[in-house]
Amino acid sequence: MARPVTLFTGQWADMPIAELAPLAKEMGYDGLELCTWGDHFDVASALEDDRYVRRRLELLEKHELRCYAIGAHMVGQAVCDRIDERHRDVLPAHVWGDGDPEGVRRRAAQELIDTGRAAHRFGVDVVTGFTGSSIWHSLYAFPPTSQDYWQRGFVDFAQRFEPILAAFEAENVTFALEVHPTEIAFDIASAERALEAVRHHPNFAFNYDPSHLGYQGVDYVTFLRRFPDRIAHVHVKDAWWGRGDGTVGVFGGHTTFGDARRSWDFRSVGRGDIDFEEIIVALNDIGYRGPLSVEWEDARMERVHGAAESAAYVRALDFEPASAAFDAAFSSTSTET
Amino acid sequence: MARPVTLFTGQWADMPIAELAPLAKEMGYDGLELCTWGDHFDVASALEDDRYVRRRLELLEKHELRCYAIGAHMVGQAVCDRIDERHRDVLPAHVWGDGDPEGVRRRAAQELIDTGRAAHRFGVDVVTGFTGSSIWHSLYAFPPTSQDYWQRGFVDFAQRFEPILAAFEAENVTFALEVHPTEIAFDIASAERALEAVRHHPNFAFNYDPSHLGYQGVDYVTFLRRFPDRIAHVHVKDAWWGRGDGTVGVFGGHTTFGDARRSWDFRSVGRGDIDFEEIIVALNDIGYRGPLSVEWEDARMERVHGAAESAAYVRALDFEPASAAFDAAFSSTSTET
Amino acid sequence: MARPVTLFTGQWADMPIAELAPLAKEMGYDGLELCTWGDHFDVASALEDDRYVRRRLELLEKHELRCYAIGAHMVGQAVCDRIDERHRDVLPAHVWGDGDPEGVRRRAAQELIDTGRAAHRFGVDVVTGFTGSSIWHSLYAFPPTSQDYWQRGFVDFAQRFEPILAAFEAENVTFALEVHPTEIAFDIASAERALEAVRHHPNFAFNYDPSHLGYQGVDYVTFLRRFPDRIAHVHVKDAWWGRGDGTVGVFGGHTTFGDARRSWDFRSVGRGDIDFEEIIVALNDIGYRGPLSVEWEDARMERVHGAAESAAYVRALDFEPASAAFDAAFSSTSTET
Amino acid sequence: MARPVTLFTGQWADMPIAELAPLAKEMGYDGLELCTWGDHFDVASALEDDRYVRRRLELLEKHELRCYAIGAHMVGQAVCDRIDERHRDVLPAHVWGDGDPEGVRRRAAQELIDTGRAAHRFGVDVVTGFTGSSIWHSLYAFPPTSQDYWQRGFVDFAQRFEPILAAFEAENVTFALEVHPTEIAFDIASAERALEAVRHHPNFAFNYDPSHLGYQGVDYVTFLRRFPDRIAHVHVKDAWWGRGDGTVGVFGGHTTFGDARRSWDFRSVGRGDIDFEEIIVALNDIGYRGPLSVEWEDARMERVHGAAESAAYVRALDFEPASAAFDAAFSSTSTET
Amino acid sequence: MARPVTLFTGQWADMPIAELAPLAKEMGYDGLELCTWGDHFDVASALEDDRYVRRRLELLEKHELRCYAIGAHMVGQAVCDRIDERHRDVLPAHVWGDGDPEGVRRRAAQELIDTGRAAHRFGVDVVTGFTGSSIWHSLYAFPPTSQDYWQRGFVDFAQRFEPILAAFEAENVTFALEVHPTEIAFDIASAERALEAVRHHPNFAFNYDPSHLGYQGVDYVTFLRRFPDRIAHVHVKDAWWGRGDGTVGVFGGHTTFGDARRSWDFRSVGRGDIDFEEIIVALNDIGYRGPLSVEWEDARMERVHGAAESAAYVRALDFEPASAAFDAAFSSTSTET
Amino acid sequence: MARPVTLFTGQWADMPIAELAPLAKEMGYDGLELCTWGDHFDVASALEDDRYVRRRLELLEKHELRCYAIGAHMVGQAVCDRIDERHRDVLPAHVWGDGDPEGVRRRAAQELIDTGRAAHRFGVDVVTGFTGSSIWHSLYAFPPTSQDYWQRGFVDFAQRFEPILAAFEAENVTFALEVHPTEIAFDIASAERALEAVRHHPNFAFNYDPSHLGYQGVDYVTFLRRFPDRIAHVHVKDAWWGRGDGTVGVFGGHTTFGDARRSWDFRSVGRGDIDFEEIIVALNDIGYRGPLSVEWEDARMERVHGAAESAAYVRALDFEPASAAFDAAFSSTSTET
Repeated sequence: MARPVTLFTGQWADMPIAELAPLAKEMGYDGLELCTWGDHFDVASALEDDRYVRRRLELLEKHELRCYAIGAHMVGQAVCDRIDERHRDVLPAHVWGDGDPEGVRRRAAQELIDTGRAAHRFGVDVVTGFTGSSIWHSLYAFPPTSQDYWQRGFVDFAQRFEPILAAFEAENVTFALEVHPTEIAFDIASAERALEAVRHHPNFAFNYDPSHLGYQGVDYVTFLRRFPDRIAHVHVKDAWWGRGDGTVGVFGGHTTFGDARRSWDFRSVGRGDIDFEEIIVALNDIGYRGPLSVEWEDARMERVHGAAESAAYVRALDFEPASAAFDAAFSSTSTET
Repeated sequence: MARPVTLFTGQWADMPIAELAPLAKEMGYDGLELCTWGDHFDVASALEDDRYVRRRLELLEKHELRCYAIGAHMVGQAVCDRIDERHRDVLPAHVWGDGDPEGVRRRAAQELIDTGRAAHRFGVDVVTGFTGSSIWHSLYAFPPTSQDYWQRGFVDFAQRFEPILAAFEAENVTFALEVHPTEIAFDIASAERALEAVRHHPNFAFNYDPSHLGYQGVDYVTFLRRFPDRIAHVHVKDAWWGRGDGTVGVFGGHTTFGDARRSWDFRSVGRGDIDFEEIIVALNDIGYRGPLSVEWEDARMERVHGAAESAAYVRALDFEPASAAFDAAFSSTSTET
Repeated sequence: MARPVTLFTGQWADMPIAELAPLAKEMGYDGLELCTWGDHFDVASALEDDRYVRRRLELLEKHELRCYAIGAHMVGQAVCDRIDERHRDVLPAHVWGDGDPEGVRRRAAQELIDTGRAAHRFGVDVVTGFTGSSIWHSLYAFPPTSQDYWQRGFVDFAQRFEPILAAFEAENVTFALEVHPTEIAFDIASAERALEAVRHHPNFAFNYDPSHLGYQGVDYVTFLRRFPDRIAHVHVKDAWWGRGDGTVGVFGGHTTFGDARRSWDFRSVGRGDIDFEEIIVALNDIGYRGPLSVEWEDARMERVHGAAESAAYVRALDFEPASAAFDAAFSSTSTET
Repeated sequence: MARPVTLFTGQWADMPIAELAPLAKEMGYDGLELCTWGDHFDVASALEDDRYVRRRLELLEKHELRCYAIGAHMVGQAVCDRIDERHRDVLPAHVWGDGDPEGVRRRAAQELIDTGRAAHRFGVDVVTGFTGSSIWHSLYAFPPTSQDYWQRGFVDFAQRFEPILAAFEAENVTFALEVHPTEIAFDIASAERALEAVRHHPNFAFNYDPSHLGYQGVDYVTFLRRFPDRIAHVHVKDAWWGRGDGTVGVFGGHTTFGDARRSWDFRSVGRGDIDFEEIIVALNDIGYRGPLSVEWEDARMERVHGAAESAAYVRALDFEPASAAFDAAFSSTSTET
Repeated sequence: MARPVTLFTGQWADMPIAELAPLAKEMGYDGLELCTWGDHFDVASALEDDRYVRRRLELLEKHELRCYAIGAHMVGQAVCDRIDERHRDVLPAHVWGDGDPEGVRRRAAQELIDTGRAAHRFGVDVVTGFTGSSIWHSLYAFPPTSQDYWQRGFVDFAQRFEPILAAFEAENVTFALEVHPTEIAFDIASAERALEAVRHHPNFAFNYDPSHLGYQGVDYVTFLRRFPDRIAHVHVKDAWWGRGDGTVGVFGGHTTFGDARRSWDFRSVGRGDIDFEEIIVALNDIGYRGPLSVEWEDARMERVHGAAESAAYVRALDFEPASAAFDAAFSSTSTET
Repeated sequence: MARPVTLFTGQWADMPIAELAPLAKEMGYDGLELCTWGDHFDVASALEDDRYVRRRLELLEKHELRCYAIGAHMVGQAVCDRIDERHRDVLPAHVWGDGDPEGVRRRAAQELIDTGRAAHRFGVDVVTGFTGSSIWHSLYAFPPTSQDYWQRGFVDFAQRFEPILAAFEAENVTFALEVHPTEIAFDIASAERALEAVRHHPNFAFNYDPSHLGYQGVDYVTFLRRFPDRIAHVHVKDAWWGRGDGTVGVFGGHTTFGDARRSWDFRSVGRGDIDFEEIIVALNDIGYRGPLSVEWEDARMERVHGAAESAAYVRALDFEPASAAFDAAFSSTSTET
């Protein structure tokens, strides 16, 4: 059997999990990557209340769904970020607190540690998420930006994440960073540098998502071959690029997703430019056997239509690797008796 | 005669103007776009000392060079930016002062006004430069960023630049924004929005530079056709893209220019991917008759070699528009007598 | 629900409508765009005989089909054309008459007016069709052709169509020109000029058909974004280009469709080079909610096979637009109770 | 009805035919192209034992399968090749004998003649296969290689195959060479030369297989149009190219199939870069009505999964040619009565 | 020495030849292809007045120029065309006469015969030019156009040109048709058909001009390889395509050359998309040794600038074929004595 | 000063060195890479006769030429090859001897050792050349070829070359293998494997030549970055690919160079598809400071014309690396005093 196809619930947080679970099954999914916002997976309850964990598991089981990972993107984003008003809208009130930046970052780090513990209690050994970054704003390197300036950002990341990773290690849970603009790692070079910053900590890995790499011009298939041992989870999300009317480029022109002028945008899986065939081949080559988790975002499409077609698309594309060597059959020269 | 070919002196600020002027002539240039750093064009001296202005003009004349524009990029950058330590290295001490962000921004705005006045005294009616931006850091739109958030950045720009533009208008000098990442405008869509923000002020225009647009995926020829009346000055600067080893994309991966992993970089004119032929055609179509100012940056090449070959390249490419209509000659049917 | 998928009956005119209607249903269509040739929709009968109209509607209803538009291409072609023997084969005898060119054009104009009236009686408010053109033959501009010469063609079009459009307005029916070689408009520039020629008459619009634009090198997606308010009907027809053996280009080399030497040809929907994904996106962006009418032409394929696969293709591709804003779900931070 | 879809059994020779036949049916095939190795089709038995032939035919019939061709690739390879140890592994013991090269070649020629006779007894008139080549090793032309040198290779081929073709003619069976690297013909130019070498013998034709042509840069659609009368059989096999990491090119770098560094590889049908749409069009244009025989090879995919999806892919792609001329329907102008 | 570089004078007919000749030399040309309009080459004078011929030859000689061909495009165009007002502007008054179409065509045919005779008296054995066409207007094939309809156009061409070619044969002069839209031949397929129509008359050949083929999508290098014995003369003219703003395609949108919306346009040699390198290679391969005649047209460029750079461009590109076989030097193994 | 531009004399071996030396100077070269065939550099004489060495050096000096490398391609080819009649034509008689394959290989190995010694006596520390290969003939891997089979080829290479490299080490000379089809290394993967086979012997390096890599689909720029320490010499040779008529692919179709059907061929430098700009950039990045040696081969061009234009092309392209860091000039904020 090929890999399970799951749905990341982050884009469905407005829908109660009790409603989303049967819908996900109906749309063709084998499982859910539960996010820690909306009512999908509440960290505090999971830590404090055994019944909460049991009820969640029963809900999934009832709909023949499994959970392989917990998504902690929002709280992770705040760990290293230069905090501004936009974070308030996406953070739990107890993490935002009074909004003082350093306080927010520290509470976010604690919340992420708690998420790892909660995941473990839930029987899940991967937490996907973001890290934020203290140096993302300097990406263009003007005013002239030195390697010292950037290195301080990686050091800051390491200092903030090493305690988190230690806590994860204690729970035997892996933190899988989704390499993504605004994070400490957003391409292969910065992913290597982040890995070095935390000295290749065994509980630090990646939540591979090609949609954030392709439009940048990063070779998203090479990503898999460069980090064969660090692919802890995979998002299947599509994007298109080289579109629009030429007035907005990769930097986005301060336009909203779905604006027809944009050169790139997220698209329902199979509607964009990501070559998932190459990705499946590479995942087989490196031996990844985990779930393919659809992160569905398409500013233009009705989401149930989209998530259903995406599940079908992934299932048709994925395949089992060969069990026997090529051309072996040619060598059989026995004749019938 | 086709357009004059000038050299932007910003990348040569370590060389005294007395040395650069004869070298520029020798490298094949018709003029200089003097920058306001190094010793090339000192705003305070130009305002206070008539002899300074006269000596500069004599120096240019002696080497048969002309000046069509003054470049005030560094100080302009500080007008709207979120100020950090990187600005200190590129600002005059009296603008940086105590480094308090809002104080820096205000002193930079005043310095820019002074630059317009100095340019006028120098007989030049274009100041090229940057604006900085209070919202560049949010370019990727995560955490989710609203149009309100971005609009506040454009309002901030308008509030800070309207007094500057008023001062420029009084001197009959145009401020020509080089559309560029980290500025309020960095593509066609944001350039339109910036223009609207200052209500199409007559003294606000663009210093066109294709090298900042092409690698982003912005149609740099369309830029000219979209703003035919706002092209006050033109930089000839080249870049290549779609290169590197696939590990670093458009966002630059926190790598330094010249790093072989990068997908894009600046290159000596004619060595990159900018289609200058299309640009010359469009400049002729829209009637631009000003200088073609080489901004020479190539992290890999010896600069005198590069600036000389760039001047020759531009001169070979540029051409006069046709004076007569196509096929007119076909209609002449008179026979010899 | 996404848009209805209909079949243009022009390529099936050899088949009686009583036979075609059940076949269309079986091939997967929701409706028919009836043409005015063959026995599909007879203008004179519809105008003179209420029972004819009623019987046609009953036939459609019996097969659960709807009609959203009447196709009057042949008679429209004759309104502005330089008439030659080829028109005789495609015009009703009473329109051709004695074949005197100006007489043919006038009778065709009257027939088109009658078609608008008949459509109204049939409960349909769109007539799709052609206009012909008095200047198509001069398209290459040799011998040298002036704008005066071409402008006379647009004036001729306006003079012949303004009475037709007035009649359509009286019936509240829109004439939707299929922008197409040999018509007054065959690309975006000429479509704009045609629109200006009839002073943006409210009953003049377009029957969008990308297959006539793509192989020419016209940006068929831009067409939709340029005329968002004038897309009255949509043909889904496919073409391929950049094929053949290099001996025949876009001008067709006086070869017949299906000739293997041709660089372009019409193809069954989904077998060609039209990017229908981009078209569906643009149709959603501009708010088009009418039918997607398959005009099936493929010189190489058995037509029932082709029309059936085309209906399935369109249905799989089309989708409902999103109802909620992207990323809205991220902001929900309530926890379970 | 479109063409039958068959499976070439060469890659399944490790599986007894009694097991493969029902599996093939289940995977969606209409027939088998039986290979002469494994227990699929034993030449000696077919020649000597009428019951063997009958039992094979009954087996096929029982599973509603047909056989249109016998595949004799291995033995054909040895007819002209410079024999080395690699041939031993793929040849029947009685052909290999003592391994003396010329002896092997002669026994292989005789075995191929016998295969033609056996095919005829089996009611099949096409034997697909290879020829080997005495000059393949010199393909790069260094040390400098003359046309005389190469011509000797074609003469050798003709001398060895003319007796074989004469024997095939006597049985009314066609030998269909699969144009393929290591054979006397491996592109269009060498296929023409091979045809000339055997003076266009009526029983010499091609087993078309695009997968061996595309990655070389040979125009595989042109192949069909160049030899419309010599396409005796068609393999549907896919390959991709322009992949890998840039370290291995078309010559393969002495790497094994499935190595991620390779620029090209065989892929399950529909997963590669062969444009089968263009091929089906050309097959219809030249009037080929025989089977489409899937030769399934993909070093990365589980073969039952792959062969099943390949059968479905071919069936969805293939189509009947048009029966009537394009636009004929437009000419029908009769009205309803 | 490589081929002579000449200038076609058609686009300079407003300039007296006495002025153009020294200018051409100065711009770098070796000769002139004199057109029969303006005062460049007057057919009647050449036929009637020996001194006229002598003076023209002396003028050329004085400026070290040679004439290899006479250009009779305008009068040739009228031979087969459907005549309209546009022809009047480009025809000599005595050919236009009363403008009755058939009369114009007959007088044009006679004028073309006279041009052949005049060329012979001038010592030139090639007349380049056009043919016009009675079927160009039907190029798109709508209303549906039969092969009978088109064949009548080729028959008309043959009937009108056979007497002309007979007259040329008597003078030992070749008529070289410039394959071009609006002519009987405008791509490779129609060129083959035209050649067949005049039964491969030995005095009918082509004036090769890639600029009319490339933007259509015709393989202009294949043209040379398809007709190696019929290339009597070569125009070097450049065009670009795949440009513009997407609103005007290959059919030109009834726009004027130089309009920025056009997808294609003529450009100064070296500024467009024609791959002249491939052309020079093919000309060497087929053994063409005649002149390379620059036909300079660029609606955007000052023509003296353009014609001078074009001459230099051609001269830098052209090269002599190899005299010895490749790798021959490798075989020399003699050692020094 | 940028790198010296030299000429490889292998393709000029029919011309005495006394004639070639002044011609090379005149064509624009700074030096010669002398080949060991023709009379250019005789190994035996150099070893035995001091005057020979002195006279050669004086000849070069007289024409202001230098020699940086000796080319021993022919004899190197025979060291590992499966010897056939083609080797006889390119080997010295004393190496060919009686033509027994193993004898030829051993004499060739000894001759190569002697060449290293002779080079040292001549003051040159690089010998460029080939190795041949015992496994090139199996490149396509059919009959199925195992890694064992190929590995034996690399072992054979190591066994034959280790004594040669030891001898070179004693002379402080590097053997620079030109990675090339028919050699033990012909792409990056096989180059790595060859390097491993000789255990990274310090005197084994590469003579980089992009023309043998590009048409294969090997990333020839990556080659430089993969082996920064092993680039001992550089050939500047051009090739084009993706050409021809589609009937001959990369394997060459047993056609001769210069055949118009071929998809690839060698071309005069600057006339092909090699991106030398990228190569110069990479050579600067890795710090290569040796000569750029033009290996001129173009079956279509007169060689003196070609070699002269190639020298000029290389000289215009090559450039000195930057001495100072990018943007450093921006930081200078001192003002004039």
